[in-house]
Amino acid sequence: MTLKQIGEFSLIDLIKEDTVHNKDTVIEGIGDDAAVVSTTEGYLQLLTTDMLVENIHFNLNFTDFYKLGNKAIAVNLSDIAAMGGVPRQALISMALPKDTEIKNILELYKGMKDICKKFSVNIVGGDTVSTFGPIVINVALVGEVKKENLVKRSGAQVGDLLLVSGALGSSAAGLEILQNDLKDKFDFAKELIKKHLVPNPRVELGQLLGKNKATSIDDISDGLASECNEIASASQVGIRIYKEKIPVSKEVHAVAEYLNKSYVDYALYGGEDFELLFTMNPRDLENFSKKNIADIFVIGEIVNVKEGVTIVDFDGQSTILEAKGYNHFR
Amino acid sequence: MTLKQIGEFSLIDLIKEDTVHNKDTVIEGIGDDAAVVSTTEGYLQLLTTDMLVENIHFNLNFTDFYKLGNKAIAVNLSDIAAMGGVPRQALISMALPKDTEIKNILELYKGMKDICKKFSVNIVGGDTVSTFGPIVINVALVGEVKKENLVKRSGAQVGDLLLVSGALGSSAAGLEILQNDLKDKFDFAKELIKKHLVPNPRVELGQLLGKNKATSIDDISDGLASECNEIASASQVGIRIYKEKIPVSKEVHAVAEYLNKSYVDYALYGGEDFELLFTMNPRDLENFSKKNIADIFVIGEIVNVKEGVTIVDFDGQSTILEAKGYNHFR
Repeated sequence: MTLKQIGEFSLIDLIKEDTVHNKDTVIEGIGDDAAVVSTTEGYLQLLTTDMLVENIHFNLNFTDFYKLGNKAIAVNLSDIAAMGGVPRQALISMALPKDTEIKNILELYKGMKDICKKFSVNIVGGDTVSTFGPIVINVALVGEVKKENLVKRSGAQVGDLLLVSGALGSSAAGLEILQNDLKDKFDFAKELIKKHLVPNPRVELGQLLGKNKATSIDDISDGLASECNEIASASQVGIRIYKEKIPVSKEVHAVAEYLNKSYVDYALYGGEDFELLFTMNPRDLENFSKKNIADIFVIGEIVNVKEGVTIVDFDGQSTILEAKGYNHFR
Repeated sequence: MTLKQIGEFSLIDLIKEDTVHNKDTVIEGIGDDAAVVSTTEGYLQLLTTDMLVENIHFNLNFTDFYKLGNKAIAVNLSDIAAMGGVPRQALISMALPKDTEIKNILELYKGMKDICKKFSVNIVGGDTVSTFGPIVINVALVGEVKKENLVKRSGAQVGDLLLVSGALGSSAAGLEILQNDLKDKFDFAKELIKKHLVPNPRVELGQLLGKNKATSIDDISDGLASECNEIASASQVGIRIYKEKIPVSKEVHAVAEYLNKSYVDYALYGGEDFELLFTMNPRDLENFSKKNIADIFVIGEIVNVKEGVTIVDFDGQSTILEAKGYNHFR
């Protein structure tokens, strides 16, 4: 059965089920002109949106509809995490060719619903339209944050340490495996591919960082180099990172070596790891580390704006780290 | 200059200006991982989204980038109006080919910014991505409504009158003029085309209706027939409308006659008029009419659910009014 056969309204009936997990906040979900939701007193609202385009952001030869739905939500959750917030309500818009199989659309929604359920996010509305072109998925996500827990990109201070919440470059290495058809070459291939196709947004950690005086956070969507430059520019500071301190798994090393590429480049420019890059005062970090057992890695420090954003090589040589990375339209 | 030449980040710098009109509510606009906004105490939040796809929803041979931007916002404002709400914050996502001229994108944003300014709506974020296919524009809009002013689609009561806020079919007639190249045939062509390309969302009226006990509202996006069926179904009532009472301008009559079509069909199935269809108790309507000078037209009444949704012809003959209209994928 295809979309053309059942039409837009029947589709809405099919996807309505299992969309509201946090019932107290939803007065009216899918079905009216707008969704009606309540907010939490004393909280600020966070609004974010991400658009995924077929053959630009995803390739249905590599992923499937379930994983695609999952990732479309995950990338938005990651943005809310990067503000220290709690994700709440999602709006889902999709442009789909008329001959799209209904079972594929339901799989896409299943992927969205499962991750929404995991993070107690309600799907409260959306728009489904037809297209003669590639599939386009847009998610708009509303989150909340207590005023005192809000962490902006602009709060990094000279003397802060720069940290990252997990190993980097795995998503890029996973994509390399897919693009170079190396699935059978490495016995860990599946794990790296999963890092790329089903990223795990660091929502709980983002909230912990908000409660524990992180001075800035950015999620790693475009690569470490790009995110470092964003924090530096927004905070009007310099950043010095140390190549040797960047956490990269031995599996990523292996893929890079096999392809005769630099594993550090995967971490710096690959992007889509969706780990959190953040800054914290050394004393606050000590308190935070005592309280929380989390994989976090100090990779550098915040320095005077005049120093710019630099990376220190194994031999102590320092070079400017440019904001290359995944920039659309280039 | 094209998008490819300047890249995503430079584009963001270009469009940032003049996006925040209601400064008190915006803590952080365009630029961070998510926008940060405050809500009004005692208000509920309204969330809506609409996606426009090139050659499905718009045709750049008929419209221009400015008008397109304007309409992309207008259709969302109309959804907030249909809940009795006040529009507040907008997120704009766009998929654009890499060779899109920057001046066209700025025109698109100008169209969005001007209507946002008119309704005091802030543009607080978005996503701009590349595509190999048609242009896709998604707007997600956040509004607010006092709990007691919220008007859902589901509140129509037997005995209520059914009203519409203005003449119908004009947008469809405007589209006919464009599609049949009749611009030079009618001296009023420009006005009807404008109704189609630059719809005027009834935001103030929606708020007035919310304050004046309208029992249900729907905005006319898919055509009167479809919207009547939506109110009937959501409210579990029947609806009887009278063909003779449906307001249609003499210009629409003229276009229909010229094309040998039914002017009533334009009103019933054309859609995109973005007038409000609403129901009100006769006594409340009397009070409302005394207080407010607005062009509103009684076109029918709410009846028992068993009667279904019917239209009464000039000769008193009654027929079932099916929910035909602009249904995607059919």
